[in-house]
Amino acid sequence: METEFISWLRQRLPPHPQLPLGPGDDAALLRLSGRPECLLTVDLLTDQVDFRLGECDPRRIGRKALAVNLSDIAAMAGRPLAAVIALALPRTRAFELATELYEGMLPLAAEYAVAIAGGDTNCWDGPLAISVTLLGETTERGPLRRSGARPGDAIVVTGRFGGSILGRHFDFTPRVREALRLRERYELRAGIDVSDGLSLDLARLAQASGCGARINTADVPIADAARVLAQAEGGAETALAHALGDGEDFELLLAAPPDVARRMLDERPLDVPLTVIGQFVAEAGLWQVDAGGAARPLVPRGWVH
Amino acid sequence: METEFISWLRQRLPPHPQLPLGPGDDAALLRLSGRPECLLTVDLLTDQVDFRLGECDPRRIGRKALAVNLSDIAAMAGRPLAAVIALALPRTRAFELATELYEGMLPLAAEYAVAIAGGDTNCWDGPLAISVTLLGETTERGPLRRSGARPGDAIVVTGRFGGSILGRHFDFTPRVREALRLRERYELRAGIDVSDGLSLDLARLAQASGCGARINTADVPIADAARVLAQAEGGAETALAHALGDGEDFELLLAAPPDVARRMLDERPLDVPLTVIGQFVAEAGLWQVDAGGAARPLVPRGWVH
Repeated sequence: METEFISWLRQRLPPHPQLPLGPGDDAALLRLSGRPECLLTVDLLTDQVDFRLGECDPRRIGRKALAVNLSDIAAMAGRPLAAVIALALPRTRAFELATELYEGMLPLAAEYAVAIAGGDTNCWDGPLAISVTLLGETTERGPLRRSGARPGDAIVVTGRFGGSILGRHFDFTPRVREALRLRERYELRAGIDVSDGLSLDLARLAQASGCGARINTADVPIADAARVLAQAEGGAETALAHALGDGEDFELLLAAPPDVARRMLDERPLDVPLTVIGQFVAEAGLWQVDAGGAARPLVPRGWVH
Repeated sequence: METEFISWLRQRLPPHPQLPLGPGDDAALLRLSGRPECLLTVDLLTDQVDFRLGECDPRRIGRKALAVNLSDIAAMAGRPLAAVIALALPRTRAFELATELYEGMLPLAAEYAVAIAGGDTNCWDGPLAISVTLLGETTERGPLRRSGARPGDAIVVTGRFGGSILGRHFDFTPRVREALRLRERYELRAGIDVSDGLSLDLARLAQASGCGARINTADVPIADAARVLAQAEGGAETALAHALGDGEDFELLLAAPPDVARRMLDERPLDVPLTVIGQFVAEAGLWQVDAGGAARPLVPRGWVH
């Protein structure tokens, strides 16, 4: 079925100026647009872990498989360039499923000018697994790492957090444009995308930077979906707990000097909200500060693979 | 288990001069060594299709997962640079299995100076699936495509064919060094690696080049393993049929002008045998020519995904 599928796919792939040789040879050939540096990331999505095949449109699964990688390139303030896609398809309806997955991926690829450079499409007796590898380019400012935050830097986030399981974990907008715009205009020191949980990913960034972080809990932007979940649970988990630990928000979490952060908030350079939720501190660990100013340790929570 | 596994892995990854930022951030950062071009390929290996987990050492599986990608970069006459690895692991013994797979991959990566740039390591309720994406660089001669063969060109192959199922499909040497040496010294017009079957991959290269091909069957270098298989089957399939259709030989199949091919054979630039097995012709299709000179159509055979 792979030959038939490649024919189907090749008819749907637009030409890409940086892809002189796409699917159909032993490897794809890509032309970088300037800098001799590139970014590479891979994410694997599997049935019953990242989605439930029987319960959702495969187009949403395909879209998500590419979008999570776009979010990783955004976290590095990179420009996505090309993807290769490996599919392990259950034998039943394999061709249809492959086309539906790609029907979800292709519009997102077009939106972000990502070339679909190649893939490997296989059938087997196992459940659906999708691995997308994304190649990106750095900009003049270079890649934004996790390790550059300094004590005193503000913790800046895009968007709102929590409750993504209600749908946003499929339909989120990867913050590629936002990261590029912020990186171009402001001095950013470090960045990560919130995939596993706001508190967990913040802890990771702080650890990579050799510092700690304090979150002002009253300032955390909480998504409506987190409140819906909290209400449905009758208060078992508060909306804040959902915001801090649910994950799959795919928002940016950035470190910036405090004056830069103030300027970012004043100038509102994005269409999505930007919020300062705390600051990095010299002492290792994660702390939550309540509205009254009392600080206590915050145990990082989120999705542990 | 991913956090624990990443710690294990990071202790075993040697530094790589072209990988300023490896596993542990949102994406890896790679520095190309000169040309602003790169090659990208992905292969997915799955349990019960490409290997049987219960019946072989996971180290051989890990090695194969990287080696098949090295073979693809070799087919383009490229220089491999960096790999990212996605694992879907059955929950039982997941950590041990991951380490064993990498223990098979790491020595091969070191041998070919491939940086392990990142990965995604997951557990699930399905069988083992391994997806390796390999980034390569082109050389001054540019990438070797499938599409450059011309009528009259010789069909040149490295090594011997058939019977890889007896073990060589795990332990083959990807022809990276051979491809680079040949590309540097000789005018090669097209290339492919024989992954699915000598006749099938020859048909693909001929089709991509808009021509046909004639194989002199008496000249096909047959592996001992193909003879062993043929004998065990009591003549049901001849050793030649195994050589033409078994696949997973991972040898190079090249197109070169006839005088260049003669020079290659005279000069013996490689440690492995080089053989001319026929020539490309203007008429589309595949033909086998027996020792007496009679030509008849050859139906391409091999592994169809």
